[in-house]
Amino acid sequence: MMLESPLTFAENYAKSRIALFGAPFDGTVCYRPGARFGPNSIRGEFYGVEPYSPYQDKDMESVSVFDCGDLDLPFGNTGRALKMIEDFVEKLCGEDKLPFMIGGEHLVTLGAVRALRRKYADLAVIQLDAHADLMDAYMGEELSHAAVMRRIWELVSDGKIYQFGIRSGKKFEFEFAKKHNHIQKFNFGGLKAAADALGNTPVYLTVDLDVLDPSILPGTGTPEAGGVSFQELLNAILGLSRLNIVGCDMVELSPIYDPSGVSTAVACKLLREMLLML
Amino acid sequence: MMLESPLTFAENYAKSRIALFGAPFDGTVCYRPGARFGPNSIRGEFYGVEPYSPYQDKDMESVSVFDCGDLDLPFGNTGRALKMIEDFVEKLCGEDKLPFMIGGEHLVTLGAVRALRRKYADLAVIQLDAHADLMDAYMGEELSHAAVMRRIWELVSDGKIYQFGIRSGKKFEFEFAKKHNHIQKFNFGGLKAAADALGNTPVYLTVDLDVLDPSILPGTGTPEAGGVSFQELLNAILGLSRLNIVGCDMVELSPIYDPSGVSTAVACKLLREMLLML
Amino acid sequence: MMLESPLTFAENYAKSRIALFGAPFDGTVCYRPGARFGPNSIRGEFYGVEPYSPYQDKDMESVSVFDCGDLDLPFGNTGRALKMIEDFVEKLCGEDKLPFMIGGEHLVTLGAVRALRRKYADLAVIQLDAHADLMDAYMGEELSHAAVMRRIWELVSDGKIYQFGIRSGKKFEFEFAKKHNHIQKFNFGGLKAAADALGNTPVYLTVDLDVLDPSILPGTGTPEAGGVSFQELLNAILGLSRLNIVGCDMVELSPIYDPSGVSTAVACKLLREMLLML
Amino acid sequence: MMLESPLTFAENYAKSRIALFGAPFDGTVCYRPGARFGPNSIRGEFYGVEPYSPYQDKDMESVSVFDCGDLDLPFGNTGRALKMIEDFVEKLCGEDKLPFMIGGEHLVTLGAVRALRRKYADLAVIQLDAHADLMDAYMGEELSHAAVMRRIWELVSDGKIYQFGIRSGKKFEFEFAKKHNHIQKFNFGGLKAAADALGNTPVYLTVDLDVLDPSILPGTGTPEAGGVSFQELLNAILGLSRLNIVGCDMVELSPIYDPSGVSTAVACKLLREMLLML
Amino acid sequence: MMLESPLTFAENYAKSRIALFGAPFDGTVCYRPGARFGPNSIRGEFYGVEPYSPYQDKDMESVSVFDCGDLDLPFGNTGRALKMIEDFVEKLCGEDKLPFMIGGEHLVTLGAVRALRRKYADLAVIQLDAHADLMDAYMGEELSHAAVMRRIWELVSDGKIYQFGIRSGKKFEFEFAKKHNHIQKFNFGGLKAAADALGNTPVYLTVDLDVLDPSILPGTGTPEAGGVSFQELLNAILGLSRLNIVGCDMVELSPIYDPSGVSTAVACKLLREMLLML
Amino acid sequence: MMLESPLTFAENYAKSRIALFGAPFDGTVCYRPGARFGPNSIRGEFYGVEPYSPYQDKDMESVSVFDCGDLDLPFGNTGRALKMIEDFVEKLCGEDKLPFMIGGEHLVTLGAVRALRRKYADLAVIQLDAHADLMDAYMGEELSHAAVMRRIWELVSDGKIYQFGIRSGKKFEFEFAKKHNHIQKFNFGGLKAAADALGNTPVYLTVDLDVLDPSILPGTGTPEAGGVSFQELLNAILGLSRLNIVGCDMVELSPIYDPSGVSTAVACKLLREMLLML
Repeated sequence: MMLESPLTFAENYAKSRIALFGAPFDGTVCYRPGARFGPNSIRGEFYGVEPYSPYQDKDMESVSVFDCGDLDLPFGNTGRALKMIEDFVEKLCGEDKLPFMIGGEHLVTLGAVRALRRKYADLAVIQLDAHADLMDAYMGEELSHAAVMRRIWELVSDGKIYQFGIRSGKKFEFEFAKKHNHIQKFNFGGLKAAADALGNTPVYLTVDLDVLDPSILPGTGTPEAGGVSFQELLNAILGLSRLNIVGCDMVELSPIYDPSGVSTAVACKLLREMLLML
Repeated sequence: MMLESPLTFAENYAKSRIALFGAPFDGTVCYRPGARFGPNSIRGEFYGVEPYSPYQDKDMESVSVFDCGDLDLPFGNTGRALKMIEDFVEKLCGEDKLPFMIGGEHLVTLGAVRALRRKYADLAVIQLDAHADLMDAYMGEELSHAAVMRRIWELVSDGKIYQFGIRSGKKFEFEFAKKHNHIQKFNFGGLKAAADALGNTPVYLTVDLDVLDPSILPGTGTPEAGGVSFQELLNAILGLSRLNIVGCDMVELSPIYDPSGVSTAVACKLLREMLLML
Repeated sequence: MMLESPLTFAENYAKSRIALFGAPFDGTVCYRPGARFGPNSIRGEFYGVEPYSPYQDKDMESVSVFDCGDLDLPFGNTGRALKMIEDFVEKLCGEDKLPFMIGGEHLVTLGAVRALRRKYADLAVIQLDAHADLMDAYMGEELSHAAVMRRIWELVSDGKIYQFGIRSGKKFEFEFAKKHNHIQKFNFGGLKAAADALGNTPVYLTVDLDVLDPSILPGTGTPEAGGVSFQELLNAILGLSRLNIVGCDMVELSPIYDPSGVSTAVACKLLREMLLML
Repeated sequence: MMLESPLTFAENYAKSRIALFGAPFDGTVCYRPGARFGPNSIRGEFYGVEPYSPYQDKDMESVSVFDCGDLDLPFGNTGRALKMIEDFVEKLCGEDKLPFMIGGEHLVTLGAVRALRRKYADLAVIQLDAHADLMDAYMGEELSHAAVMRRIWELVSDGKIYQFGIRSGKKFEFEFAKKHNHIQKFNFGGLKAAADALGNTPVYLTVDLDVLDPSILPGTGTPEAGGVSFQELLNAILGLSRLNIVGCDMVELSPIYDPSGVSTAVACKLLREMLLML
Repeated sequence: MMLESPLTFAENYAKSRIALFGAPFDGTVCYRPGARFGPNSIRGEFYGVEPYSPYQDKDMESVSVFDCGDLDLPFGNTGRALKMIEDFVEKLCGEDKLPFMIGGEHLVTLGAVRALRRKYADLAVIQLDAHADLMDAYMGEELSHAAVMRRIWELVSDGKIYQFGIRSGKKFEFEFAKKHNHIQKFNFGGLKAAADALGNTPVYLTVDLDVLDPSILPGTGTPEAGGVSFQELLNAILGLSRLNIVGCDMVELSPIYDPSGVSTAVACKLLREMLLML
Repeated sequence: MMLESPLTFAENYAKSRIALFGAPFDGTVCYRPGARFGPNSIRGEFYGVEPYSPYQDKDMESVSVFDCGDLDLPFGNTGRALKMIEDFVEKLCGEDKLPFMIGGEHLVTLGAVRALRRKYADLAVIQLDAHADLMDAYMGEELSHAAVMRRIWELVSDGKIYQFGIRSGKKFEFEFAKKHNHIQKFNFGGLKAAADALGNTPVYLTVDLDVLDPSILPGTGTPEAGGVSFQELLNAILGLSRLNIVGCDMVELSPIYDPSGVSTAVACKLLREMLLML
C-alpha cells in the first residue's frame, strides 16, 4: 500500500533501459510560466492511462522504464540548472540508459544535448515544435527558451537539426533555419525522407507539445493557432521507430492553463506511445 | 411565466412518442466524477439551441418529445440505482414510448438495456465510444462503468454488440470484442455495412460522448486523445436514421471540467440532431 | 518606458492607412455577455504575437496601422452606441483611413456599415459567421445582434450580402438568405467564385469569430459545434486579398469564457494575418 | 417526476403571500456583466439548501412562497425592461402579494420601486450595499445601475432612503447622501435606530449582495474590498423582521465569476433567511 | 532522487507513532463529488508547507509520522469500502499506531470508528463540522455521508458524541443532537468544558473541513455560509492537545472546486498543526 | 481617444512627486510563478476603482503620481534584473521622485533598497508580510524571494528592519528575526510604537500582499492561512502616514490563481489608499 511512482515499470534502475526524469524548470519563459508543473502533472495522471496501445498493439509491460523522479533545479540561476541536467544525463549515459526528460521549458533540452553531444560526435536533433527557437538572444540573454535551438546548432553545426511543424518565428529565424538546418513549416512533410537519410545516425528527439494545435493542448505557455492534430503527431512519432534514438524529451506542458485536465491526458498518452515506440 | 422544462415539446406525456429522462448517476466512476451533472446542464442550456437543424432541414416542432425530468437515484447503492432505471424504462416501454436517457455515467445504459432486452429478444446494441468497457470487473466490482458492455454482452450474447470509435482498453478487451462483438477501432468505418446488416432488428443506441475528441468535448470524466470530430459523429448518427431504434442514450457529459460551457453546447446540439433523426 | 499601445505601428495617425479601434459593446447579447472584453484582451496579448507571418511571408513593419483605442460606448442605450460607432467610422473615412473595428458583439457592425454605405453606394458585405443573424427582431428589439444582418440587408438590399460558414438560424432565416443574399452553409465553398464576381466592388468584411469551431475558439458568447478550422478560416481570409476592402471588423471574442487564453491568442494571430492581407 | 421549480412552496399562486420572481437583466452594467445569470443560478442550487434555519428556528414549510419564474426582459432596451418589471410588480401588488425580486443588476430595483411608490405614498427604502449608486448619470445615461438610488430618490424624496454598508462612491455621492438620505458608511451601525424610527412605514428592502466582503461573495460584478461578513449581514436582515416590508429584492449575484459555486450557496442561504424573516 | 512521499517523516513504519493514510472515497455524496481527490491534493502540496509551526513553536522533525499511502477503495460498493477502512484501522491499532485518516467524504469516519470502538469500549467522538449528519437515512440509504453521525451514535450510544460548529441540518437532527449528543451550534463554545469533562477518555476526533467558512475553504462539496475562521478552528484544535486522542481524521476537502489552490493550502497547514498537536 | 495609462494622474513626469513603476519579475519563485502578471493586471483594473476614498476622505486628484510603465526585465538572469531595478530607482531618487514599485515577486525589493540605502544611510525597512524571508540561501541561491530580507539586513544591519504579520518561516528565521530585527508574529501589534520610535527616520515600506488572509487575496504564489483582514491591513497602512516614507512597494499579486478577479480589485484599492496616504 506504499505510494509508488506509477511510471516505475522496471523492477529497479539496474534492469531498465529507459531512464525517465523530470526537469521542472521554466525560469527563462518570458510569456506565461508554468511548465515547471509539467512533470508532476504527468506523474499524477499517468496511472489513468491504459498500459495497452491499440495504435501499436503493444503493452507497457514490454518496456523497461525507470522513473528517476525530478531534478531539484534552482530557480533564478539558469546556468546552474542547465549544468545539473547535463551532469545527470551524462551519468545516465555512462550507465547505458536512454535518457527521457520531461520538461519544463524548452531550454532544458540544451542541458541534455550537451551531454549527449559529447558521447555522440555526429548527433542529429529532430525537433517537433511550433516555434523555431533560433533567436541569437532574447532580452539580452543567450540562455533562453527562444534561443535553445540556436545554442544547440552551435553544438551540432550545420545540417544536423531537423525542424518540423514550425509556424512561428522572426523572419530571420526562418532564413537561418533554411540555411543551416532542415526545416518544414506547419506540418511533418518530409519526415519520412529525413528518417531515411538519417539511417543509423544517433538522434536526439525533442517534442515541444505546442506543435499540437492549441485546441488539442491548450495547457502550454505560448499557444500557436494552426497546429497539427493528435493523430498527425502520433503518426510522425511512430514513423521514427526505426531510428537510432539515443535521447528524448517532451517539453512545455503547462497544466495550469487548462482547467479541464485534457492537456495532461494528451501528454500522458503521447508519453505512452513514445515509450512504446523507443 | 411559469418555469417550464425547455424540452417539453409534446403537449403532454400521452401524445408524445419519445420520452426523455435523466439518470444523474456517477457512483462507479473511478477517475473523475461529475457525469451526474449532465442532465441538469443540458436542460439548462437547451433553450439556447436553435430548434431548426440545417443539417437535416427539420424543426423540433415536428418531434413529439416529453421530458420526464430526472430519476431520483440514490448514491452509494449501485444495484438499486440500476433497478430504478430498469423499472422506469420498463414502464415507458409498456406505454409505447421510445426511451431516451441522458446520463450519468455509462453504467446507466445497463438498466435501460435490461428492460428493453425483456421486450425485444433479438435486441442489438450500437455503441459509439472511446472505451471498450468490456472489463469483467473493476476493482472487484462487476457493476462498473468500465464493465458495462460486458454485462450487456451477457444479456444479448455474441454478435449483437456493434462497437465504433474504440481507442482505449486493455489488450484482452480488444480481443474479447473481436471474438464476441463487432468492433471498429478509432472511427466509424463499417457503420453503413452494419446498418445494412441490421435491417429491421430492434436496436439500442448508446452514445458515450467521450467518443468525440477531447478538444471538441473536454467536459467528460475520462478524456481520450485522438477522437472523432463533431462532423464525423453527426454523420454517423444521421446514417442510423433508417434503423429500428427502440431505445437510446447519451452519456458521460461532465460539465464541471469545462468552464467554457462548450461541452454542454455540443451535447445539446447532438441531442437536437438525435431527436430529429429518431 | 511609457506604456504604449502595442498596436501603434504607424508613427502617427496621419501617416497610417489602417485605423484600428475597439467597440467594446455587448448590450444586446441575450445569451452570454462578455464580448465587451474583446478589444482589451486582444491589445493585452498582441505583443506576444510574432510580427512575421510565415503564411504570407510578410512582416507587420510593412503595414501602417494606427490604434485609435476604444470608443467609450454607453451601456444600456443601444441606439446611441451605434450612432457613436457610425460617427467615428464616418470621421475615419473622411480622413481616408481604412477602418478596422474590433468588437464587441456583432451588432456593432451595423454602425460601421451605416457610415460606409453612405460613402459607397454599391457596398457589398462579406460575412464569415456561424449564425445567419437575419431575425427581423429579437425579444421585440430590432437592434439586436441576432438581427444585425437583417438591418444591414435593409441598407444594402438584395444580392449584396455574402454569407459563409452559416450553421445556425431559424428555418426562415435560411430561406430569407437564399432569397435575398448569397449563402453558403457550414463552410467557405464558393468564396473564390464570389471574390471573382465582386471584382472591384467596395467590400465590407465582417468576421464573427464564432465561425471557428468552438474547440479552436471556446471564448465566444454563442458557441456552435461543427465550425471551421483555423486553417480554413485563414485560407478564406487570404483568398480575399485582391478584393477592394473598404472596411473590416472582427467580432464576438468573449475571453472570459476561456481561462486557457487560447481564444485571445487565436484572435491575435488572425488579426495579424488580416492586417497583413489588407 | 416533472421538473418543478424548487422554490414553489405554495400549493399555488392564489394561496401564497410572497411572490418571488427573477429579473435577469444586466444591460447597464459597465464593468463586468453576468448578473443576468443570478436568478437561474439561485434556482438551480436552492434545492441544496436545508429548509430549516437554525438561526431563526423556523422551517420553509411555514412560509407560503410562489415562484413566478423569470421575466423575459429584452436586452438592449433599458426603458422597456424597467417598464416590464414595473408592470409585473404592479400586478402582484394588485393581487396582494409581497413581491420578492431576484436580480439582475441593481437598476431593476427602480422598476419595482416605481410600482410600489404608486401604492404607498410614504414608501421608505432600505439599501444594504457597497456602492452609493447616487450618480446623476453614468456615461451620459440616467438609467444606469450606478444611478439607481438617485432615480429612486427622485421618486421618494428626502429622508426616505436609508443606506448602510456604503464603502464606495464619488465624493459628491457621499455628500448627496448625507444631505438627502440617511447614510452609514462601511457597516450597519444605526440600523436598529432606523428600524425604530420607521415604525409601521411601508418599506422596500433592497439587498445588493456586494455589501458582503468579496471573500464571502466573489461572484459579483463590482467587488469592493472591506465589506461585511455573512454573520453581520444576516444579523442586519433579522433585525428588520418587525418592519412593514412591502417589497424586497436581492441583486448583483454574478455566478460566472465564482467557479467554486460558493457565491450562489451564500445567496441561497440568505434567500432562505430573508423569506423566513418576512 | 527517487520520488518520496513528502509525508514520510518516520524512517519507517516500525518506528512511527502516527500512521497517516488516505481514504479517497466519495461514493455517497449527493451534491458535489470530488472529496476523493483530497488525499492526493494534500500530498502534492504538503511539501510547500513549512515544517515549523510558529503557533506551537514545534517542528515536524519532532513528530514520527508514517504515510501509508491511499487505500484502494472500490467505487459503487459503499459497504465494501467501509469494511476495507475498518480492517485497515484495526490492523494499525493492533500495531499500536495512532490512525490519522484523510478523506474522502465524511462517511469514511464510520469505518475508522467501527474499528476503534471495538478496541475502546468507552470511545467518545468529537466532531467539528458544519452539518449535523444525523439523518436516519438519505434517499433511502443508511450508509450516507448525511447519516454518518447517526450510524456512529448507534455504535457509541448517548452522551458520547460532541458536535461543534453545526450550522446546517433538518429540525429533527438538531432535536436529536440535543437529546442524545452534546451539540454547540455555529461555533466552538463549550469546547474547553467538554475537554475537561472528557479527561482521559479515549477520543476520536473528526474534522470536517466544511466547518470553516467557505471563504476560507471554498473547495468542499457542501459549502455552508457563516462558518468559523481559520484562527478559531486552529485554537479549537490546539485546545484538544491534552486529550487522549486515539484516532483522527480530516475529511471533505474537494480541491476541484477551488482553482486558486488555497483550500488545499489551508488543509495542509491544519494537517501540520494537528500532527504537531497529537 | 488614445490609450492612456490609467494611473497617469500627474500631467507629466516633471510635475509628479510619486513615480510608480512595475517590476514584472518572478524568476526565483520556487512554488507558483505568476507575480510577473501583477503590474499589468493592476493597470488593467485600476480604472474601475473610485478615485475617492471614504476611509481617508481624499481624492486621487490631490495626488501627483506618474506611471513610468514597466521595466523590461530579463527572465533567467536574476542579477541583471535586480541591477536594472536598482539603476532605475537610483535615477528616480536623483530626480527627487518617491519610487513606488509594483512587483513581481518579493526579491525585487532588494533592487529598490540597494538604491535607497546609498541615498539614506540610516534607512529603516517596514515589512508587512506572511513570510519572514530570512533564509540565508534557497536551493543554493542567495538571490531568492525566500532570502530577500536577509540580503536587505546585510545592507541596513541590526535593528533597522520591522517585520509585521509574519506567520511562516523556518525556526531559525524566527530566531534570527528576534535577534537582529523587530518582529511581530501574526498581526500588526506594536506598529504604532514602532512608528513612534521611527520618528523622522527615512523608511522603505514593503507590502507583500500575502500578509492578507488567502480568503481576501487568493491570487498569490504562496498563500498562508491565518492572515490579516483587509481592514486590519488598511488600518496598519493608514497608521504609517506620518512617517518619512522614501520608497514603497506592493508585491506578490499573482492574478492567474484567482479567476474571480477579486485579488486584483483588492490590490487596486490598497494601491489607492497607499497613494493617498503617502
